[in-house]
Amino acid sequence: MSISTTNQALLQEATSALFSRQFYAPFPEHPSPKTYGETAEADGQAAYAAQLGKPFDGLNAGIGASWVGHELSPYTQTPLGITYPASSVDTYINQAKAAAQSWANLNADDRADILIESLMAVRGRFFEIAYATMHTTGQGYMMAFQASGPHAADRALEAIAMAHHELTRFTAEAIWDKPMGKTNITLRKWWKAVPKGINVVVGCATFPTWNTVPGMYAGLMTGNPVIVKPHPSAILPIAIVVAELQKVLASRSLDVNICQLAPDTLQDPITKELVQHPAVKLIDYTGGTQFGNWIEALPGKITFTEKAGINSVVLESVDDIDAVVQNLAFSVCLYSGQMCTAPQNFFVPASGIKTPSGLVKPAEFAQKLSAGITALVENPKAGSFVLGAIQNPATLMRVSQVDQLTGVEVILASCVVSNPQFAEARTASPTVLLTDIDNEKVYGAELFGPIAFVISCPDAETALSKTASLIEGHGAISCGVYSTDVQIRNQAAELIASVGAPVSFNLTGGIYLNQHASFSDFHVTGGNPAGNASFTNPSFVLQRFTLVGLREPVQ
Amino acid sequence: MSISTTNQALLQEATSALFSRQFYAPFPEHPSPKTYGETAEADGQAAYAAQLGKPFDGLNAGIGASWVGHELSPYTQTPLGITYPASSVDTYINQAKAAAQSWANLNADDRADILIESLMAVRGRFFEIAYATMHTTGQGYMMAFQASGPHAADRALEAIAMAHHELTRFTAEAIWDKPMGKTNITLRKWWKAVPKGINVVVGCATFPTWNTVPGMYAGLMTGNPVIVKPHPSAILPIAIVVAELQKVLASRSLDVNICQLAPDTLQDPITKELVQHPAVKLIDYTGGTQFGNWIEALPGKITFTEKAGINSVVLESVDDIDAVVQNLAFSVCLYSGQMCTAPQNFFVPASGIKTPSGLVKPAEFAQKLSAGITALVENPKAGSFVLGAIQNPATLMRVSQVDQLTGVEVILASCVVSNPQFAEARTASPTVLLTDIDNEKVYGAELFGPIAFVISCPDAETALSKTASLIEGHGAISCGVYSTDVQIRNQAAELIASVGAPVSFNLTGGIYLNQHASFSDFHVTGGNPAGNASFTNPSFVLQRFTLVGLREPVQ
Repeated sequence: MSISTTNQALLQEATSALFSRQFYAPFPEHPSPKTYGETAEADGQAAYAAQLGKPFDGLNAGIGASWVGHELSPYTQTPLGITYPASSVDTYINQAKAAAQSWANLNADDRADILIESLMAVRGRFFEIAYATMHTTGQGYMMAFQASGPHAADRALEAIAMAHHELTRFTAEAIWDKPMGKTNITLRKWWKAVPKGINVVVGCATFPTWNTVPGMYAGLMTGNPVIVKPHPSAILPIAIVVAELQKVLASRSLDVNICQLAPDTLQDPITKELVQHPAVKLIDYTGGTQFGNWIEALPGKITFTEKAGINSVVLESVDDIDAVVQNLAFSVCLYSGQMCTAPQNFFVPASGIKTPSGLVKPAEFAQKLSAGITALVENPKAGSFVLGAIQNPATLMRVSQVDQLTGVEVILASCVVSNPQFAEARTASPTVLLTDIDNEKVYGAELFGPIAFVISCPDAETALSKTASLIEGHGAISCGVYSTDVQIRNQAAELIASVGAPVSFNLTGGIYLNQHASFSDFHVTGGNPAGNASFTNPSFVLQRFTLVGLREPVQ
Repeated sequence: MSISTTNQALLQEATSALFSRQFYAPFPEHPSPKTYGETAEADGQAAYAAQLGKPFDGLNAGIGASWVGHELSPYTQTPLGITYPASSVDTYINQAKAAAQSWANLNADDRADILIESLMAVRGRFFEIAYATMHTTGQGYMMAFQASGPHAADRALEAIAMAHHELTRFTAEAIWDKPMGKTNITLRKWWKAVPKGINVVVGCATFPTWNTVPGMYAGLMTGNPVIVKPHPSAILPIAIVVAELQKVLASRSLDVNICQLAPDTLQDPITKELVQHPAVKLIDYTGGTQFGNWIEALPGKITFTEKAGINSVVLESVDDIDAVVQNLAFSVCLYSGQMCTAPQNFFVPASGIKTPSGLVKPAEFAQKLSAGITALVENPKAGSFVLGAIQNPATLMRVSQVDQLTGVEVILASCVVSNPQFAEARTASPTVLLTDIDNEKVYGAELFGPIAFVISCPDAETALSKTASLIEGHGAISCGVYSTDVQIRNQAAELIASVGAPVSFNLTGGIYLNQHASFSDFHVTGGNPAGNASFTNPSFVLQRFTLVGLREPVQ
């Protein structure tokens, strides 16, 4: 085996992009018929519809497999009725062990070739994955297409490229020739990149492919067998990805159990048993903080986590308050605040945000933000598509109870958003709450979902230091700062970076602080409590293999 | 500030060596007067002698410092009588915090320049450090010079070069220009390498600089303030290193508390309190397994450990048994087996090692190894210098009790080795014990010190799989395999590498499996229970900082 010319070229492009960090998106994000084929959209929708109510087609069923699955569409609030082959934890582990050596024996080029081929196969099912994502996560169609399709594939390729680079970074062999006075000692040395062991990737309910494929492809590229444990509410999108990879593995006469899907149900979860198995050495996890902390503390495991954070925006001065409000309203509405990068807290100086037309005080900003949100929600061509549906009924409950929070004034109440396509969609428009910086016991917790606090604070400096302390204590995955004063921007960059959170300055127009671009934005820094890993820095791949040296005298 | 031309050139050489892994030793290992100066040796000895019985000269004394120190020479068995300034843990932490920002603000070139300058200053004290090392660790003079002087400085430079490379590996700034149909979204992006926090480096009693400077310089180079906590039995060698660094920091008008020494005593240890402090984010540790496991399990810390392992040698077939025995006898004698890389277990097939002159069975091999050891021990020009002295009385005790081990036959008893220079030296020559592969409860534990087991086993294959299982269970830092059969060597390479231990094949002559060369041999792989870190792979530096992205629209 080796790598095809096409895949080699793509890998080189991707590696170059990694280090230059300029725009690079090999999988086009626009679901254009020109790019993806005239019938691709209809075919994808039909394939999704055809799968409903049936055992999933295309995954290897392990020995003694049963069929499980209890997914439910947030749009129709009816079960998908799809079941997936499930085995015991021991079976997954034994199958992974049996597959390990053949996969470890392949070199970096071989593995890259196979994994890139699998991404190209997944590309052919982007539209089907989009519908699968809509009906498991509640994402709007466009986000479901982009996040689960091209953006996820970009992230997977990024992990492949980084791992390939790290695997081949040191010389594979050297002649070490040490002068010892009259003679030399000469050794031939060579090195092996030894996979760490079984890699379990635990997925989340909101981004079932985007948050799973980086760990999955990083683990595979570095030679480890991977077991993907999807969230029981969002199996179908990643099942399609694993199925396509298994097809490629089979086509190369490799053991399909190099990558297994291990589905479970909310009633009968297997994650704890699976990740605690002694043969599991690597764990990728996306999800809640409490369970993530438990995973990070498991002895003898190397973990890559994305948990939760509290994302803040500090507003000091702006050129165009309307453009800012429009941008931020969109950030709050996008997938109803169910993104790990969605902003929750908006700090506004009590004296007001400086604008060319005067100061905008907290209450006024809250009104403007509410108006911006309402305009978007009520826009028949945008509202329901941007908002999508609510993945988890617990989120609905949280939103419905914000009026019970102490010390907050409800400026905009959440409401049901009627969806023209799905009458039964589980929806909730964003709520805007006004409060004060002293009320940290309320805004200083992650209130996942469409909930925004406008927080009155003495000044921008106080807002920045409160933001920094929230990040230190609870983590953050994104942060926004609006200031026309370069000194304040520099101060913010210094302070917020020092606690390990990225900062977006003065975003307006079609770019949002929620968005992290593959090959350019490291997603989660790994440097604050929101998670210990980052898509995709070198550590994300390096910790998955061991460099082992061998040496012998040269005769 | 910036980097001097000389230091820049050295850094480039070092970085190039890192990746080519060919021989590179910028600090010459031979204590030649031509290299180091005609009077350097005498001056170093005099400086060491002048320090005895006095408060240590050259370290910054923190607020409210007391003076502590209870070192004792294994050669004279008398106290060194040197005291060092010691503060409370809170004082170290507060001083480190106060120094952190100024150090973090420097760029990679600035820091490399300062740190390389400190190594050059330390170079001027290599001979003094050699005497300090002898009289704390018991190492022989030549090893004390090489390991604590040039080899340690090489390892420090290696860490500096790797960290500099990683800090500057991604573009520092990029213009990200995303086509959006009719318009583009254009962001300026830039990145900061943010230090993780305070880095504590916990030293060991046997290699007080060699095992400490990699973590110390890696932590510093990546911008973290460092607190060096030496082993209470071996403070002086690293105190000289920290003092020289503090001088360089002071000469650049930087806070000397960027690197502090935190000495303690066996009676009143501070390590647990120090490493558990919430401000300590990074911990380097060399020492026993039990305490190392406790350190690795501390929540919220990133750890770099070198604990202990059980190093094995498998002998299947050799070209020249006498050359092999001579090499292995030296490996066992060197510093009386007190190296983490020293071999303990020698597996010999019951049918014998294949040699051109017939089979050498386990008992005969044990006799030959004993004879080789005895010849070296009794060589007046080599014995006591190679063996050195025993650092810890507990090691003497362990050696004296080997006849109580079950199922072993004492082939060579340990004896006191008279040292021509130091009549009171604490010494013990190596003991050779013959046993069987079934007796794992005895040889399957680390018996630190000059203790060698010759283990009879059914065949080489069994020996290799037993070696692999010992590595999986207990770790190993070195491994030797002797075979003239390329298939067996390949099988051994595959098997032993798969459990994360390096392998040296067929070493004879002046190269020993104990020796790991800077810039070429990764020391400890990080892939087996002997430790989770490696000198110096990319992970050793990458985990010490966070890459944080910042972005703003291009106007």
